[in-house]
Amino acid sequence: MAPFPKSVSIHEEGPREGFQFEKTPIPTARKIELIDALSRTGLQSIRIASFVHPKMVPGMADSEDVVAGIKPQPGVEYMGMWFNERGLQRALSTKRLSMKAGITLCASQAFLRRNKNRTQEEDIAMHHKLIGLYQQYDIPIKTVAISSAFGCNFQGDIDLSYVLKLLGKALEIAAEHNLEIETLALYDTMAWATPKQIQSAVGAVQDKYSDFNLSLHLHNTRGMGIANAFAALEMGVTRFDASVGGLGGCPFAGHHGAAGNVCTEDLVFMCEEMGIETGIDLEAMIECARLAEDIVGHPLSGSLMKAGSLSRLRGSCPKAWCS
Amino acid sequence: MAPFPKSVSIHEEGPREGFQFEKTPIPTARKIELIDALSRTGLQSIRIASFVHPKMVPGMADSEDVVAGIKPQPGVEYMGMWFNERGLQRALSTKRLSMKAGITLCASQAFLRRNKNRTQEEDIAMHHKLIGLYQQYDIPIKTVAISSAFGCNFQGDIDLSYVLKLLGKALEIAAEHNLEIETLALYDTMAWATPKQIQSAVGAVQDKYSDFNLSLHLHNTRGMGIANAFAALEMGVTRFDASVGGLGGCPFAGHHGAAGNVCTEDLVFMCEEMGIETGIDLEAMIECARLAEDIVGHPLSGSLMKAGSLSRLRGSCPKAWCS
Repeated sequence: MAPFPKSVSIHEEGPREGFQFEKTPIPTARKIELIDALSRTGLQSIRIASFVHPKMVPGMADSEDVVAGIKPQPGVEYMGMWFNERGLQRALSTKRLSMKAGITLCASQAFLRRNKNRTQEEDIAMHHKLIGLYQQYDIPIKTVAISSAFGCNFQGDIDLSYVLKLLGKALEIAAEHNLEIETLALYDTMAWATPKQIQSAVGAVQDKYSDFNLSLHLHNTRGMGIANAFAALEMGVTRFDASVGGLGGCPFAGHHGAAGNVCTEDLVFMCEEMGIETGIDLEAMIECARLAEDIVGHPLSGSLMKAGSLSRLRGSCPKAWCS
Repeated sequence: MAPFPKSVSIHEEGPREGFQFEKTPIPTARKIELIDALSRTGLQSIRIASFVHPKMVPGMADSEDVVAGIKPQPGVEYMGMWFNERGLQRALSTKRLSMKAGITLCASQAFLRRNKNRTQEEDIAMHHKLIGLYQQYDIPIKTVAISSAFGCNFQGDIDLSYVLKLLGKALEIAAEHNLEIETLALYDTMAWATPKQIQSAVGAVQDKYSDFNLSLHLHNTRGMGIANAFAALEMGVTRFDASVGGLGGCPFAGHHGAAGNVCTEDLVFMCEEMGIETGIDLEAMIECARLAEDIVGHPLSGSLMKAGSLSRLRGSCPKAWCS
């Protein structure tokens, strides 16, 4: 087992995860308010918009206005999301987003059919077309990802051997297009992973593909998010997606109790308390979570936003007691 | 690192944790309803009442009636809690409780002073008196515990070396009274622990005291409960306190965001999914959590009670997809 990493990189998914999921419309100005607050926490990368059809995800219809409205901070990358050429062109036309692309294959054929009405083969063909498009626009493709990599609400358990096969397939696609992939990512899209599964999957990927960075996108729907992140940290994983306050949930996962990504400030707390640097100001991130809760108008699942950090308590302790 | 244990033993603290913490009075009949439901989940041990002064903890004033009202199930131990002779005598007089005692020293001198108005020396003297009393009533004393073992809201960080010193002191007290201690317990009373601290503390206790069982009482106030339990499972710990739905929080911890023990059904889910037997019916435990939420009348923090287990989803999956 590797020692804990010295530092980790946390990519914020909250604005996209959260705003696409909420049923009540959120004013554009308040979305911008949250993104601007997140920009001042030390985060280096925030996904702020999704360029999908407004009929599919009404909460994302104002994506262009959101991107146009933020006050970009130096050192922060703002990212978007898209699933087809129209979405990609919308993202490009904002001229303010950090355009990065990846090849994401879905390990659940049932979800692929249900969510995108495609077979695995059709999805792979679609990726070849998309890569051509990315290259046409000079958009770098550095990541290969497998979604629903740990299980699927519509398919059940997903075999690790299939995930590895699919990773291999995605890397073949990348090789065919002469791409230089740097990062492999596993998405626990529907929160099926336990820490033991994380150990198995991360171990297998590290063994087979030691030359790549590994990134995890964890969901907290079944309360395993932080434990899964810990298991990954024990294996030296240094890249995580997370969501402020635990905002979000996938609107297509067919799951009424779906929760968002692992909660950013809870993950920052765990890392920093264990001596792993995140570069993120925990107190500022807790304030962002409280702001997010105010914006969505219902309680979020994060813990630190309710409990507070330990620094304030440490500061007020009568040191004479400490033995 | 030890392999994961084959099975664990989970002690339910929800009724005591939860009912002492709620501000709105809960009818005695509903407390009994939850305890009776918990009795049918496979749990072998449930703490159902606390014999404290009704002025201190009004929610526990009906403890005698609760104990008298339950339908005891064979194979389930029902336990109480007390802090002085009067409380002990009340517990004894129910004649239905499994009377077991322990020596619990508090690692935070600040909390001890604030909560019990005692110095460490006065607390130790009190324990000598209590042990005499237990022996007079033939109450077995098999456990030595350290509370606030990972940090304290009133004192700050707690040194592991002090915890080990205090464990040694508690074992000396036990030896003076010829007690045969079987179990050592560490309480993260105010939820300061991270998984790394769990590794350090469990490792140090296992190294120094390899002849004892080790038990952990974890709180989820800062969202670390399940991750802390996972870290402990990795080290072979097999005994955990937990609280259905995440009910509870310590009314004396001076902490408005306090959460209860690690959530029972979330812990059961993690264990069972990782192949660690709990003897507990997860679906029945999830139903208990939903009942607990209905009884307290506000959302509880458990995740599985909202998301549901995976078995139902597995059952409904079209197997043809599974590759």
